[in-house]
Amino acid sequence: MSVFTPVTSEALADWLRRYAIGRLAQLQGISAGVQNSNFFVTTTLGRYVLTLFETIPRAELPFYLHLMAHLARHGLPVPAPIADRDNEYLGTLSGKPAVLVARLTGQSDMTPAPARCARVGAMLAGLHLAGLSYGRRQDNPRGAAWRSATAAQVRPFLPADEQGLLDAELAFQAAAAGEELPEGVIHADLFRDNILWDGEHIGGVIDFYFAGVDALLFDVAVTVNDWCTLPGGELDETRTRALLDAYHAERPFTAAERKAWPAMLRAAALRFWLSRAADFHLPREGELVLVKDPNEYRDILRLRARAVPPLVEAGR
Amino acid sequence: MSVFTPVTSEALADWLRRYAIGRLAQLQGISAGVQNSNFFVTTTLGRYVLTLFETIPRAELPFYLHLMAHLARHGLPVPAPIADRDNEYLGTLSGKPAVLVARLTGQSDMTPAPARCARVGAMLAGLHLAGLSYGRRQDNPRGAAWRSATAAQVRPFLPADEQGLLDAELAFQAAAAGEELPEGVIHADLFRDNILWDGEHIGGVIDFYFAGVDALLFDVAVTVNDWCTLPGGELDETRTRALLDAYHAERPFTAAERKAWPAMLRAAALRFWLSRAADFHLPREGELVLVKDPNEYRDILRLRARAVPPLVEAGR
Repeated sequence: MSVFTPVTSEALADWLRRYAIGRLAQLQGISAGVQNSNFFVTTTLGRYVLTLFETIPRAELPFYLHLMAHLARHGLPVPAPIADRDNEYLGTLSGKPAVLVARLTGQSDMTPAPARCARVGAMLAGLHLAGLSYGRRQDNPRGAAWRSATAAQVRPFLPADEQGLLDAELAFQAAAAGEELPEGVIHADLFRDNILWDGEHIGGVIDFYFAGVDALLFDVAVTVNDWCTLPGGELDETRTRALLDAYHAERPFTAAERKAWPAMLRAAALRFWLSRAADFHLPREGELVLVKDPNEYRDILRLRARAVPPLVEAGR
Repeated sequence: MSVFTPVTSEALADWLRRYAIGRLAQLQGISAGVQNSNFFVTTTLGRYVLTLFETIPRAELPFYLHLMAHLARHGLPVPAPIADRDNEYLGTLSGKPAVLVARLTGQSDMTPAPARCARVGAMLAGLHLAGLSYGRRQDNPRGAAWRSATAAQVRPFLPADEQGLLDAELAFQAAAAGEELPEGVIHADLFRDNILWDGEHIGGVIDFYFAGVDALLFDVAVTVNDWCTLPGGELDETRTRALLDAYHAERPFTAAERKAWPAMLRAAALRFWLSRAADFHLPREGELVLVKDPNEYRDILRLRARAVPPLVEAGR
């Protein structure tokens, strides 16, 4: 989240007349993140976040907005989009697709204790269970097809040893694919900065703009790779166990998922290595992206090829 | 809100499996109010309020629940009902119709300053504007027809001077009716205990179970009669002006509404005198009702027959 497109108080005050949330009291840009322009908006009736979409095609936005509305309706702390007086979520402001969402409270925790990892596991299961009754479908935009295409694009920029790692991983993933895994709507980017803590409760799950339909286990793997990794890249067994057990208590893993787990951790690591390598080597013109270190996920990928904690402990 | 029907932790834990909000962590009865049984419910994923409906017919509940969902979707701080995994709001628990709603934060203020009255006026206008696009219709259950019928029921129990007041007021209201006033969904019970303050913001508007379609101005009159009345029953001009001006800034009053205002304040006072008198003289068997003093609203009715501040100040 950052501000790439400016919004004036005058334009916003005018735009807010389409809504039933009172008059503009305060407008403040949010300087963080990568893909959209974001602002805190306070009105006489409430506190909201305004997002202007800089890169996502307008036609793909209803999937995300209705998903957030669906999950909020099911009692989960996600940023519910606000409908205007014509019952529409999506508008246009400063020439960009724009939406207001509920402002959630809390702060990120970059060094989570096991108890918080357990809460995240339970929350992820809740998102998956509530998502099962969501009616719209859009594929995971960073799914297997994207990974193959992006690998071909970034490969020429990699040193020889990383090309070897990439080739071996793509071959491994192709061989590992096959067994049917439970699918559904996944958040696909549930990193520590996308959870807001309100005391020991999760006050907010944010940034649904990588969501899509894919194997639910892929989402678990993305989450574990971020929440449960030690500074060197290895998994912290205590946090991993806490997250997986709490998830399993809400949505028990299937036999096929238990088998697929080690490969899925690698697929999830590959996805972030590739996107970061692409951002690094192939920056798109006119796009302001906070480039994150690709080597972090290259190293995680290498380490996940070793032994990892099982998805479900023996006897459960 | 009170507890008339008990709920056990075991029954609730089982019932919560229908939802995607995690496991039961805490259950606590709420001892306040009149019509439903209410409980604070904390799960591993969030904080909710459970309501068991004791008196409202099940067929009338969807109007209220979908109204709350509609207003929440429009960005207003009302208790959004939580959908279960089958996408349903209304279930059955302990043999009663039951719903979970979002738990809102804040506390009531029984001695509001004018600035808070202004916020309430703006919020009431926001509720009215957002309600215009609500698709369901159910009449105000305490509208003109109910007032006539209830007046006939309580009249025999009143002393002669109050019978005279009642007869005169019914005749006055019959003569005052006629001009078309803007209609819509009204809260119809926006008393001070139904607004939760979170600092200077309204964190919650609760208790929608008297809502229905009627003249929007009736809702303004109900609200002013509670928020802006001095201990003796007279209107406090400063608070009245603050509330009305803030409302008018969001939804300007029409000429017909300006004309109807003094009579509407009396109609709103009559409604609460009658319901309190009925609760006092005609208690329904098996119903636990906190009987409020009917004389408070009898006196307010008498006083509203004198001069009242205009709905809109000259020149606005």
